[in-house]
Amino acid sequence: MKIFKFTAISCLLAFTVINGVMPAFTIAGGLIDMGYGSRGGSMVSGLKRSEEPIQPIPISFDDDRPKIELGKKLFFEPRLSKSGWISCNSCHNLSTGGADNLPSSIGHKWLFGPINSPTVLNAKFNLAQFWDGRAKDLKEQAKGPIANPMEMASNHELAVSILQSIPEYMGWFKEVYKDEKITIDNVADAITAFEETLTTPNSRFDLWLRGYDRISQSEQEGYDLFKAKGCINCHNGFGVGGNSFQKFGIAKPYDKDTQTLGRCNVTKNEKDKYVFKVPLLKNIELTAPYFHDASTWSLSEAVNIMAEYQLGVTLSRDETNKIVAFLKTLTGDQPSIIFPILPPSTANTQKPDRN
Amino acid sequence: MKIFKFTAISCLLAFTVINGVMPAFTIAGGLIDMGYGSRGGSMVSGLKRSEEPIQPIPISFDDDRPKIELGKKLFFEPRLSKSGWISCNSCHNLSTGGADNLPSSIGHKWLFGPINSPTVLNAKFNLAQFWDGRAKDLKEQAKGPIANPMEMASNHELAVSILQSIPEYMGWFKEVYKDEKITIDNVADAITAFEETLTTPNSRFDLWLRGYDRISQSEQEGYDLFKAKGCINCHNGFGVGGNSFQKFGIAKPYDKDTQTLGRCNVTKNEKDKYVFKVPLLKNIELTAPYFHDASTWSLSEAVNIMAEYQLGVTLSRDETNKIVAFLKTLTGDQPSIIFPILPPSTANTQKPDRN
Repeated sequence: MKIFKFTAISCLLAFTVINGVMPAFTIAGGLIDMGYGSRGGSMVSGLKRSEEPIQPIPISFDDDRPKIELGKKLFFEPRLSKSGWISCNSCHNLSTGGADNLPSSIGHKWLFGPINSPTVLNAKFNLAQFWDGRAKDLKEQAKGPIANPMEMASNHELAVSILQSIPEYMGWFKEVYKDEKITIDNVADAITAFEETLTTPNSRFDLWLRGYDRISQSEQEGYDLFKAKGCINCHNGFGVGGNSFQKFGIAKPYDKDTQTLGRCNVTKNEKDKYVFKVPLLKNIELTAPYFHDASTWSLSEAVNIMAEYQLGVTLSRDETNKIVAFLKTLTGDQPSIIFPILPPSTANTQKPDRN
Repeated sequence: MKIFKFTAISCLLAFTVINGVMPAFTIAGGLIDMGYGSRGGSMVSGLKRSEEPIQPIPISFDDDRPKIELGKKLFFEPRLSKSGWISCNSCHNLSTGGADNLPSSIGHKWLFGPINSPTVLNAKFNLAQFWDGRAKDLKEQAKGPIANPMEMASNHELAVSILQSIPEYMGWFKEVYKDEKITIDNVADAITAFEETLTTPNSRFDLWLRGYDRISQSEQEGYDLFKAKGCINCHNGFGVGGNSFQKFGIAKPYDKDTQTLGRCNVTKNEKDKYVFKVPLLKNIELTAPYFHDASTWSLSEAVNIMAEYQLGVTLSRDETNKIVAFLKTLTGDQPSIIFPILPPSTANTQKPDRN
């Protein structure tokens, strides 16, 4: 997986020059965080940025490259769908923020899903997956769309049998899982390993958190407002969200979508009606339209809706603009992916079915 | 565009070690052809492989990287379609041999095209584009699917206006074309520049042509049969095809598809009925199903159909197997593409329309 070597090299370079004379931005671009525990100390005296309620995304190194490479192939594998045309990447497009920028995803036979597709970027920071949290982790999530008739419209047996009919996949699964037999659990496990690499470190705000002056005065004022108004109560941590479930309509009942029940579908508890997983705000600039119901394409409007329905406040235009300016500092380095080459089908491979 | 640097480096390495002790296959993988004129001399004495009617795909260096990089973004750009979901890569998937491995492509609203999508790999070696040759070159071809209601279902004005609404695209077009105004001609020109890089050098057969012993005895016998039986008359040159139009059904009228008229649609000449561009056979192993009508998924069957309908001969099973074995030596290095990151839409960008 060449891209990892590339990253490793650039990181080594960053180490080499970190006390040198290279421009600060270049150095910052190569900054390394050795793990979740190390948030990097402030390099600007007087500020305790390491104590902020938002943390920079750690740059991690995963050594299980065969598994990640297999997972990448599976993520882009259209034969996991009944039509042989839809892959994970169709709805979680890594070219466009890990989402499809549609109100809801287009699936098999051009059916539309009921809810906006969340980004796969940084999804490992979510406490659970899907808007209603019905999958406890990425591995459980990955199995869902393959068998959903409105999405990839295949089933687990068919998906596995297609992979099993292709000698290259048999070899890769055997290498990674020490087993001749491909299982849907291992398919999901490999996809998860790849998805866990899809983080977006080095946003300007993350660099600011690490002590570099990478945000403007009004962006910083936007962050101050984000905290002062209460947005931070739900949107915090590595992903600036993703770590709690909250009711949509705390301050005022949300009236734009009363059909989507949210977490109540999972818990069957009336108090979880209209409760959703708080979405990640990292890279939020890239993933319009917004909210589970895609009710707005405008980040400004989304901020105002949140203020009105969640916090019960009205923001001035200047306040909204500053919060939006802050949110745009949360866009990080997008994953650099070498597009995988997939092995051909064989005479034993089930043919795609577009119907 | 990191990938080009990568290629250049590996080529330099190949030069360095070409007289050294590295395994022959590694050396061969980095072989360089400086242009169409230079086919490489035979390094195995006694053979004049450079005079064979098939030529190895040249490894070319294109220095217009900003244009190629822009073209790559456009090739993967779903906003060129009405739905915001279908890109050039949807049907010419660079993960799967530059084609979609479907009988015919799925387009807007899940409509099916009338004919099998040809591969984009090595398409620059075609004398014209589309099965009926109705586009004289890649640039003309690229405009077609954008506006085809059964494919991307957009129109040129809309596609251009969407790009024009995104500042990053405006900047890239200005850099490449020295013009503030984006035009559909320039969109197609950039896509073409990218597509021209999508060649697949270093197939085992190409290496054999260059003098390396990279094919087995039976594969070579397959090539001898390919010439002796007459396949070579139409399938020759860099792409092993693509350089002439021929009637499907020379020796025997083709009776499996009498609806698709082929080149006759372009020339309005009765004698061009059932005449099609001869498809490229480079990478043929990767692009099932076969023929304009996708009438078979089996390469063996495809060879037998060609023998029967084009040459009027019946091949023994052994002969078919050997020809298929030869055809599988034509799979070259697939393009190594860093998946592009696309810029976000703005408030002025026309919203996708799935209907």
